[in-house]
Amino acid sequence: MTIALDTATLLAQLTQLGIIGHDVGGGRTRLAFSDADKQGRDQLFAWMQELSLDIKIDYIGNIFGTLAGSDPALAPLMIGSHIDTVINAGMYDGCYGVLAGLAVLRALRQAGIVPRRSIVVAAFSNEEGVRYQPDMMGSLVYAGGIDVAQVLDVIGTDGTRLGAELRRIGYAGDLPPGAMVPHAYLELHIEQGPLLEAHATQIGVVADLQGISWQQITITGVANHAGTTPLAMRHDAGWAAAELITQVRRMALASGSTLATVGSIQFSPNAINVIPQTAILTLDMRDPDDQKLSAAEAHVAALLQTIAAQEGVTIRSQQLVRFPAVHFDDALVAEIAQTTAALGFSQRQMTSGAGHDAQMLARIAPAAMIFVPSQAGISHNPAEYTSDADLIAGATVLLAVVQRLSM
Amino acid sequence: MTIALDTATLLAQLTQLGIIGHDVGGGRTRLAFSDADKQGRDQLFAWMQELSLDIKIDYIGNIFGTLAGSDPALAPLMIGSHIDTVINAGMYDGCYGVLAGLAVLRALRQAGIVPRRSIVVAAFSNEEGVRYQPDMMGSLVYAGGIDVAQVLDVIGTDGTRLGAELRRIGYAGDLPPGAMVPHAYLELHIEQGPLLEAHATQIGVVADLQGISWQQITITGVANHAGTTPLAMRHDAGWAAAELITQVRRMALASGSTLATVGSIQFSPNAINVIPQTAILTLDMRDPDDQKLSAAEAHVAALLQTIAAQEGVTIRSQQLVRFPAVHFDDALVAEIAQTTAALGFSQRQMTSGAGHDAQMLARIAPAAMIFVPSQAGISHNPAEYTSDADLIAGATVLLAVVQRLSM
Repeated sequence: MTIALDTATLLAQLTQLGIIGHDVGGGRTRLAFSDADKQGRDQLFAWMQELSLDIKIDYIGNIFGTLAGSDPALAPLMIGSHIDTVINAGMYDGCYGVLAGLAVLRALRQAGIVPRRSIVVAAFSNEEGVRYQPDMMGSLVYAGGIDVAQVLDVIGTDGTRLGAELRRIGYAGDLPPGAMVPHAYLELHIEQGPLLEAHATQIGVVADLQGISWQQITITGVANHAGTTPLAMRHDAGWAAAELITQVRRMALASGSTLATVGSIQFSPNAINVIPQTAILTLDMRDPDDQKLSAAEAHVAALLQTIAAQEGVTIRSQQLVRFPAVHFDDALVAEIAQTTAALGFSQRQMTSGAGHDAQMLARIAPAAMIFVPSQAGISHNPAEYTSDADLIAGATVLLAVVQRLSM
Repeated sequence: MTIALDTATLLAQLTQLGIIGHDVGGGRTRLAFSDADKQGRDQLFAWMQELSLDIKIDYIGNIFGTLAGSDPALAPLMIGSHIDTVINAGMYDGCYGVLAGLAVLRALRQAGIVPRRSIVVAAFSNEEGVRYQPDMMGSLVYAGGIDVAQVLDVIGTDGTRLGAELRRIGYAGDLPPGAMVPHAYLELHIEQGPLLEAHATQIGVVADLQGISWQQITITGVANHAGTTPLAMRHDAGWAAAELITQVRRMALASGSTLATVGSIQFSPNAINVIPQTAILTLDMRDPDDQKLSAAEAHVAALLQTIAAQEGVTIRSQQLVRFPAVHFDDALVAEIAQTTAALGFSQRQMTSGAGHDAQMLARIAPAAMIFVPSQAGISHNPAEYTSDADLIAGATVLLAVVQRLSM
């Protein structure tokens, strides 16, 4: 019996959802628990109803649509992602994974197949974390990583209380988070990076997700006249910052896996003829291996001491974020790789550079991800783009993996 | 016959002038051609009148007080500096040189001595260039380096026209700039740098003044996700800026004389998890040897090309300022050194890191400068400080040099 994806409906739904909350500039903004988010949720809810799914909503507003399997004793297979967006977003991030999940269930419905194992499509609340912190909130709550009562009291960037907004839009559900512990969790997502395109590869089999370390580094030297202060008598916070940036790049290159980025910097007094008194910079480091990430942090700490002594400046560092690396389930990753190979798609095992709901679900179930290419690696931007052929290839792999895990 | 400085009056006048235009924070602000500048000028004018000097004012407001010599055929000896200030300034910069000049004339008056050569004390307009560009304006005009009509039309940071403000405060004089070509020009000034203090030296004999090269460098790369963009695929404008800063320091250290400072920098979009798309930074380079300064500029231009190719970024540079180095008059420098030695003061031959009116007067007359220590090298700041003993030592050297050149 052939099971075929209704690709036209998948692509049409992506476009339809992408219109909701549209901005003047061509993007869309559906911040968590906003009116636009409610419209997106209502649309998703309607599409789940069209497929006669059993729809449940939990305390934090996560939406679950279940196609019941024939054996209620089996834990369900879960496919998930999110439909909230950043400000002026693209139309694929998150939405693709949720709507591809619906496409899988639609294919089963249309073929008249009832799997042995129930299949749940999940849309997790507030993955982006723009309006309310932290990000990946819905899946974090679902995986028991943070108390739901605490999260409902979070005050947003607009001064609103999360719980009040959740009730206002009608998505404060009655399902306790974590109620359904999945047999396995699958998330299909655009790469949001350039690797698949650069290697002309259709499918990314995501084996792990990088740990993230963010720190803010403050260097304090002595402001002095650029024309009268000999080099040997300088305590130049700007030079110390530059030396750090170049050394950190060297460290990252030598590591082979650590990414390190100084994205923001500020000098004071920031005048052309004054040696910088202070430099404040941020350091974003990521590595799929937590031990290597910790080693990088230790290396940077030692670098800061060396540079401070060398230039006669003081340096202090403040940890801003530290998420551990996640190693996805080996068997599930192998299953995805074999299925992809059997389907004849080119593939590449890879690491997720960004955070995803899958990293939270990995706390309570075997989890893995499937990536499709992002043109030029662009994401969180109206220019975010993945070709229809790549979108269909990803959904095809998802469907095949789901069949193998649920039948 | 003994000639003695009236040190009490010199120190008292420094304090009195320092009160004019005082700020709440302990500093003083007498921007060129402002009401506070007028008050300072009026005070100086009164003190010149007390010494029965022949006072003249030129088109650009430079004030000249002359003690007539016995031989009118001899070109006058000129002692000068300025009494305008930066915002929230110290009380020594410029004022010390002018008031020490008056102290020298007072000593001659009190001793009843008439020199063979006339002696002029000059206060040049707008040395600081804060309100009206360029700086060292009065001496530049006097030396014929810029057309006076053009300068009178300069619009200030507050929207005012220079010529109108100069008339308003009553200092638009009738002497053509450059009317008195000095036999020699002497300028006594605080060092505004740390060298004399660091070497426990009383007198700096200034043999030259650094050339100055300012450029603004704009680096354009590609903004991308810090978590998903491999190091090898980055075009990181921030890293390129840091590499430039460290290489420029290395170049300066190797040169032995070039100073190089990156005092200001700005990343865009300046976000913790985004690779910088652009970095805009300034580079201040100085060297007493113009050929070495030009070589440094060429070296930087080559560095920019190398770094641009290495990181796949584009870099463009814009020249903001280029003042040539000034080599002061060897005979005059030797005269100062011999006089200082004869008086038993410790001395050090040195380069001026900052710009001074003397560099403009050097275009039309033999010129040289005498420095006294600046505590901790601090200047352009209410904390600017030179001890009374050092102030007196400098004025003593000035008096002795003037005696040798004018009798």
